[in-house]
Amino acid sequence: MRIALIGAGRIGKVHAQTIDRNPDVTLVAVADYHRAAAEALADQYGAAAVDADALFDDDTIDAVLIASSTPTHADYLERAARAGKAILCEKPIALDLARTAKALEVLATNPVTCALGFNRRHDPQFAALKHAIDTGRIGSLETLTIISRDPAPPPAEYVSASGGLFRDMMIHDFDMARWLLDEPIVRVHAQGSCLIDKAIGEAGDVDTAMVTLVTASGRLCHINNSRRASYGYDQRIEAFGSAGMLQAQNETDTRVRFTSEQGQVEETPKWFFLERYAQAYGREIDDFVQAWKHQRAPLAGAEDGFEALRLAEAAYRSLTEDRSVALDDIR
Amino acid sequence: MRIALIGAGRIGKVHAQTIDRNPDVTLVAVADYHRAAAEALADQYGAAAVDADALFDDDTIDAVLIASSTPTHADYLERAARAGKAILCEKPIALDLARTAKALEVLATNPVTCALGFNRRHDPQFAALKHAIDTGRIGSLETLTIISRDPAPPPAEYVSASGGLFRDMMIHDFDMARWLLDEPIVRVHAQGSCLIDKAIGEAGDVDTAMVTLVTASGRLCHINNSRRASYGYDQRIEAFGSAGMLQAQNETDTRVRFTSEQGQVEETPKWFFLERYAQAYGREIDDFVQAWKHQRAPLAGAEDGFEALRLAEAAYRSLTEDRSVALDDIR
Amino acid sequence: MRIALIGAGRIGKVHAQTIDRNPDVTLVAVADYHRAAAEALADQYGAAAVDADALFDDDTIDAVLIASSTPTHADYLERAARAGKAILCEKPIALDLARTAKALEVLATNPVTCALGFNRRHDPQFAALKHAIDTGRIGSLETLTIISRDPAPPPAEYVSASGGLFRDMMIHDFDMARWLLDEPIVRVHAQGSCLIDKAIGEAGDVDTAMVTLVTASGRLCHINNSRRASYGYDQRIEAFGSAGMLQAQNETDTRVRFTSEQGQVEETPKWFFLERYAQAYGREIDDFVQAWKHQRAPLAGAEDGFEALRLAEAAYRSLTEDRSVALDDIR
Amino acid sequence: MRIALIGAGRIGKVHAQTIDRNPDVTLVAVADYHRAAAEALADQYGAAAVDADALFDDDTIDAVLIASSTPTHADYLERAARAGKAILCEKPIALDLARTAKALEVLATNPVTCALGFNRRHDPQFAALKHAIDTGRIGSLETLTIISRDPAPPPAEYVSASGGLFRDMMIHDFDMARWLLDEPIVRVHAQGSCLIDKAIGEAGDVDTAMVTLVTASGRLCHINNSRRASYGYDQRIEAFGSAGMLQAQNETDTRVRFTSEQGQVEETPKWFFLERYAQAYGREIDDFVQAWKHQRAPLAGAEDGFEALRLAEAAYRSLTEDRSVALDDIR
Repeated sequence: MRIALIGAGRIGKVHAQTIDRNPDVTLVAVADYHRAAAEALADQYGAAAVDADALFDDDTIDAVLIASSTPTHADYLERAARAGKAILCEKPIALDLARTAKALEVLATNPVTCALGFNRRHDPQFAALKHAIDTGRIGSLETLTIISRDPAPPPAEYVSASGGLFRDMMIHDFDMARWLLDEPIVRVHAQGSCLIDKAIGEAGDVDTAMVTLVTASGRLCHINNSRRASYGYDQRIEAFGSAGMLQAQNETDTRVRFTSEQGQVEETPKWFFLERYAQAYGREIDDFVQAWKHQRAPLAGAEDGFEALRLAEAAYRSLTEDRSVALDDIR
Repeated sequence: MRIALIGAGRIGKVHAQTIDRNPDVTLVAVADYHRAAAEALADQYGAAAVDADALFDDDTIDAVLIASSTPTHADYLERAARAGKAILCEKPIALDLARTAKALEVLATNPVTCALGFNRRHDPQFAALKHAIDTGRIGSLETLTIISRDPAPPPAEYVSASGGLFRDMMIHDFDMARWLLDEPIVRVHAQGSCLIDKAIGEAGDVDTAMVTLVTASGRLCHINNSRRASYGYDQRIEAFGSAGMLQAQNETDTRVRFTSEQGQVEETPKWFFLERYAQAYGREIDDFVQAWKHQRAPLAGAEDGFEALRLAEAAYRSLTEDRSVALDDIR
Repeated sequence: MRIALIGAGRIGKVHAQTIDRNPDVTLVAVADYHRAAAEALADQYGAAAVDADALFDDDTIDAVLIASSTPTHADYLERAARAGKAILCEKPIALDLARTAKALEVLATNPVTCALGFNRRHDPQFAALKHAIDTGRIGSLETLTIISRDPAPPPAEYVSASGGLFRDMMIHDFDMARWLLDEPIVRVHAQGSCLIDKAIGEAGDVDTAMVTLVTASGRLCHINNSRRASYGYDQRIEAFGSAGMLQAQNETDTRVRFTSEQGQVEETPKWFFLERYAQAYGREIDDFVQAWKHQRAPLAGAEDGFEALRLAEAAYRSLTEDRSVALDDIR
Repeated sequence: MRIALIGAGRIGKVHAQTIDRNPDVTLVAVADYHRAAAEALADQYGAAAVDADALFDDDTIDAVLIASSTPTHADYLERAARAGKAILCEKPIALDLARTAKALEVLATNPVTCALGFNRRHDPQFAALKHAIDTGRIGSLETLTIISRDPAPPPAEYVSASGGLFRDMMIHDFDMARWLLDEPIVRVHAQGSCLIDKAIGEAGDVDTAMVTLVTASGRLCHINNSRRASYGYDQRIEAFGSAGMLQAQNETDTRVRFTSEQGQVEETPKWFFLERYAQAYGREIDDFVQAWKHQRAPLAGAEDGFEALRLAEAAYRSLTEDRSVALDDIR
């Protein structure tokens, strides 16, 4: 697969490196609003720095990886779909449901392989948890607990631009919940507070939140978010069922344990998503290539982005109106 | 302290044994609706089997431990208070707020040492957690997660008689939440399902539940209950704050780890409350005796029972009306 | 069982308290070289303070617990045996094989219940490990690793008086090895260094040691001793077999885990033997009473003391002569 | 660095893949006694399949990686040294000290960068342990415990050809011991048994062994080897010092914990060296390239191979003569 990358920022660089290590994909072009950034990254991996507009008509390009700024995702996605390119798009497609729905329509009329960057589905730990649930290891799944805490809060201005905690941060957990619960979610209840950074509250958002989801059959799911965990990136999932429990615990760099009069000490969890999900990014590219090659659905697709966004919208409505919200009311 | 025990059932026996091991208390009398049960237990510990009615006028008795059936608690408590006896009463005082409030009034006019059987406050683990929070180990507390799962569901008929999951089981977690959050709880939201035993649902209750509490300053608390954990009694608390996290983990009988081709295996958690809270029962008696001797408040008192019951009432209203409930509305 | 205690020092106090909690034994008398110490302890538990010499002819006394200073053990043991009393004797019987052998002869001609204070056999963890080995959980046992480190070194003068590291400290590990390996040990090799306290070296002993034992069938055992572990009492055993591995890990007071930017911290191991083996002392008394009542052998007997001492003697010979030693040569 | 690989077997393939992922090295040629194997591997990575004899005069080749069969190592190493190539040689250089010493002489007169394949020095866990020791985290190192168990024994014929347990398997642990103890080892004592496969015993070797090392200052080290651990590759190191303890624990594929009525189960350790030391092989190549580029010593060199072999020789002598051996006597 010959792939072009749009966006040479932090996440674009991660993808470029990951592509470079994958023998089945070649990075042929890099585009970025900042030409110099595109050139630097293209040079590093022997690709061409190009203008994004030039990519879609280039027949030598099989696929486009969209890692530019959020407001540009939907347009690029539509242009790539119309050009018949396979697409790996960073989440979200857009910050509102209407724009996302429109992009889905374009995909429906232009059916190409389209993967969405829900990287956690590709994490070996969560994949093992999913596999164990699906093969009945804990009997029937009853409750799910997702803990997801960032090491440090972003600047308050980022919070607004990114759509806020539920659309930007918990969106990953909503996707995990959908994937693991494996049946329709029917109700959403959200509570949130601003306990960490006043500026976030002044920008109209929360930095600490708890959400409860209920599925059609009555399974319950708790999601727990904080914008600041002093000890690093806290990413855990607990699945409880009729025959047992599965817990995906935090990863550490090594398993070295230090015991002194202070206690028995293991390392802090890996610092942030680049460290914690390094393997996941590699597997994500792999799944994308295989999906394209074998014309099968990727592990996470555009509809998954739409559905996760509906949950985020429901959470904001619940928070604002201080009541639980039926997901059917969110369209 | 010379103490009389009302109730020679399962929990009565635990208390009798605990009293026997405490050099500061002597079990002098045992009363029970079933005379034979009272006699058997009294014999075992060299106490007299008596009629409950005879206890209150007996000047040689300092204290009464009420471990009879729930509907009798409030009456015995009031009689003991009027008789000037110190009281250790098993929870709940009553299953409704009005009756509980009436008992509190009697206590107000007859001020005796009155402890309520919230045994978990006396658990060394949770006590260590509380101490660490109070001494600032995790900075400012932001979120609390309480997981509490029984090994096996009770018969459906018990569920109704006991007041249901929120009043009978989660009541302990509500008390833990109040104790650890250490500030007024202002909002309650509950979700529940019947996933384990249909008969519980037919009796009008849930067997799986998630509750979210919000405090005055915005702290959030998640409580997670299940009536059946295949692996034993699951009793964990996680306190998350600005400077770190504390986790009270499940206890096992030994620390022996077995590694085979099946994996690295540690023991299941202790089976149920008698095993898990054996130490707590001992410390509860101790705290009661010390409170009486030094005329100080016991670690958990009658008002704590009232407040926990308010939270249970709020949870049922939230569940029934499918909305979050302001605690101020529950009187 | 009516028992008399000889020795009102640290370990004597532990036994007095343990006896007090056991409904099957009554402490009737306490003797000590220091009359005041005997009186204080006797008073605390409602026993009589007596002269040791008066105990053996007292027909109301069933058993004698010998917890006096080491040089007096063998004499008291012989007198108690001749008087037909059941005996629980703190280890060692004596610091040399000849004196120990003589005591064993007295026991042979005066067969009474005689238990030796190898408290670790009664530890629930090591008992669970033993049970798992005996029931074939790890297939055939192949190697054993015993780690045993004290929190702080004793004064150098104690080291000499007590017979040195192998006779005083590792003696417990030799007994564990014999108990768990469950077949004759044929060879002993010891290495030792003085790394902690020069004065110990000047007193002719080591403070850090490694010993290798070989059994008749070729099983190997490693024992690892240090007189000072900065983090507390380190008491672990690892049993490795053809089908798996068992590890008895250190105990902590609670299971509370604290996570901060310093790491994920669990408590230090329990501080020393009184804390770590509190349960073991209770079970030791229990085993002693049951052995006496049912006329069966106690879990550890006088011969076990003799055999452990032979291993200690072999270790010193190995260390001195810098070679491995056949146990057959130690008599 | 342009590198040629001699040996296209199991370990050769690992190196080829590792080189492919390293941007600083290019695999230009592959040689193997089996021409077809060389061609297959060369094709896979775009290298040329060549005759080993042709490599040494080829000026376009900077370095040679020797991963052929053990008896050929020393010759190839000497030819590469004389040709001025940088060398990464799989361990051992040779199975006897004399041949190894001769190779070292050739290296002395032909000073090229020469790294030896002691992969464990490059393992992130053991590197972290080493760093923590060297920076004083545990104060002064006093004892070291190295546990190293293979998942399954090799065929008995391999055992003889490879030089036996001490020269082939424990050689890695001897190197770890030297590296971590960081001072001269002066005494060696070995015990061994044949408990797993009779054929290994008939071939004159042991399959289970314990070795004690003593350093000049009196530090003690225990090495524990078994040819078969039912649960996978058991690779742990415990360093104990005056101020604390460090433990490098086994790695697992994920951190998913499964709790059922069977217990709380974590995964088995990674299966064997290819899984466990995957990262180490990458870092080994990296260290080699950096050493060559900056003309500094690699982390493990030819002398380290010689010294580890001396320890293996001492262990065999100790085992055979049933005594402890002074390392000075092994030349």
